[in-house]
Amino acid sequence: MKVIRNIDEIVKITRKIKEDGYSLGMVPTMGCLHEGHKSLIKKAVENNDRVVVSVFVNPTQFGPDEDYESYPRTLEADAKLCEEIGADYIFHPDPDQMYPDGYSTFVVPSEKMTNILCGVTRPGHFRGVCTVLTKLFTIVRPDRAYFGEKDIQQLAIVKRMVKDFNFGIDIIGCPIIREDDGLAKSSRNTYLNDEERAAATVLRRSILEGKKAIDSGNLSKEEVLKIIKGEIEKERLARIDYVEIIDFDTFDQVETIKDNTLIAMAVYIGKTRLIDNLVINL
Amino acid sequence: MKVIRNIDEIVKITRKIKEDGYSLGMVPTMGCLHEGHKSLIKKAVENNDRVVVSVFVNPTQFGPDEDYESYPRTLEADAKLCEEIGADYIFHPDPDQMYPDGYSTFVVPSEKMTNILCGVTRPGHFRGVCTVLTKLFTIVRPDRAYFGEKDIQQLAIVKRMVKDFNFGIDIIGCPIIREDDGLAKSSRNTYLNDEERAAATVLRRSILEGKKAIDSGNLSKEEVLKIIKGEIEKERLARIDYVEIIDFDTFDQVETIKDNTLIAMAVYIGKTRLIDNLVINL
Repeated sequence: MKVIRNIDEIVKITRKIKEDGYSLGMVPTMGCLHEGHKSLIKKAVENNDRVVVSVFVNPTQFGPDEDYESYPRTLEADAKLCEEIGADYIFHPDPDQMYPDGYSTFVVPSEKMTNILCGVTRPGHFRGVCTVLTKLFTIVRPDRAYFGEKDIQQLAIVKRMVKDFNFGIDIIGCPIIREDDGLAKSSRNTYLNDEERAAATVLRRSILEGKKAIDSGNLSKEEVLKIIKGEIEKERLARIDYVEIIDFDTFDQVETIKDNTLIAMAVYIGKTRLIDNLVINL
Repeated sequence: MKVIRNIDEIVKITRKIKEDGYSLGMVPTMGCLHEGHKSLIKKAVENNDRVVVSVFVNPTQFGPDEDYESYPRTLEADAKLCEEIGADYIFHPDPDQMYPDGYSTFVVPSEKMTNILCGVTRPGHFRGVCTVLTKLFTIVRPDRAYFGEKDIQQLAIVKRMVKDFNFGIDIIGCPIIREDDGLAKSSRNTYLNDEERAAATVLRRSILEGKKAIDSGNLSKEEVLKIIKGEIEKERLARIDYVEIIDFDTFDQVETIKDNTLIAMAVYIGKTRLIDNLVINL
């Protein structure tokens, strides 16, 4: 397992991999790798001859008041984990190399898919995500790229972008990995103190309350939203950013819950913003 | 020379070309090929083992009141010309294939480079250009791509995009090809009637008047602009869209003309909008 910091070097390596006829998987990450990432890398290693994990805290996807500076950076541990799972390369460029002076071209994803959910309170976030992924995809040219279903809006937007830009990359979504008490694994969980950590279980718990209502035949969006929000509001440390129930195929609003409806939420626990979601299959 | 209409097919062909170790040149065009395009294709054929000419009238780079519908389409003649010069493939996709239902991802180029010159009266034009080129570049993956210096703003923006997105493609600008009377070759020249055709020489003539003033030591932007605009205003059929003199490296305004200053203009001759430019080397 090698850590490559230079763009030209990873280009050379990945072109050689393809010339030699090997399949190439990629797992784009911001590092601070946890069990969620581990499941992506494992799947990539299983399904590809060679695997590149990118570790890059991408400045263009953070808002001015967000946690770019404080976002955890743990390259040594990340490298150890990648080595253990069997990834071949970590690509870890400097921000200056990815965005040199004069950098000025951006990818703007689907308006309909970004004017909703996390896009409302994080304007520009998906622009940053799509821009850095366009760069990473032209640099690495993987056959397959792996994304967690925790960032479900990101996954949908990236699938759309890859199709729209003809990247010819299979975008593979992988199930959310959770702690024993149901909290979705996230690098941002490291921000939580003990009390907040206990409170953070409310995201999953409230979604499951909603699912229980749906399973027992309540298909009214308004009513299920009320149940979910009510559950969250019981938690003193929680503050709702959004809870939404939409058509996962079209990102349209729904009145009546049907197959492939997405329940998605972002909730502040103290100062930490956490997300979770569930796709309803009826 | 083969005309390929299918994206998957040109992907297969161009990947095979690279696998076989050949260099690949690309000339992106909207067809209606003239001597200007011919010079680009010739250079591509000279400098690459294989050459793809794309012929695609790209709807996303036309404004709602522009000439997308009436833009000349002359595929048969274009194919003949490509065959004669020695290009290997024309890539000629349908708009529906390039922009299928649900298409929604766009490339937004440098604000500074687009809020000026043609970008002022053609908002969204360079967004369309960069979007289609991103698609064409991921589809064809050329080593080199050739663009005319007539569309000098486009050339500068594309160079910036290719650098920003790490395409690893050499973008090669080729000199403007002119009619005997100085009019820059353009597919839109076919719109001109005889009287307009005669009037259209005013673009080049006015630029040369400006250059004469500069060569004789007048380096004031204001004064040179006045000379150029005065020359254009003598022509009854001409209506200025813009005449600008800017720093070609930075796209900043200049007061005093210096090396690498760009004189650029768009002028309506009747209903036809024509452009021309000159980079001043002192």
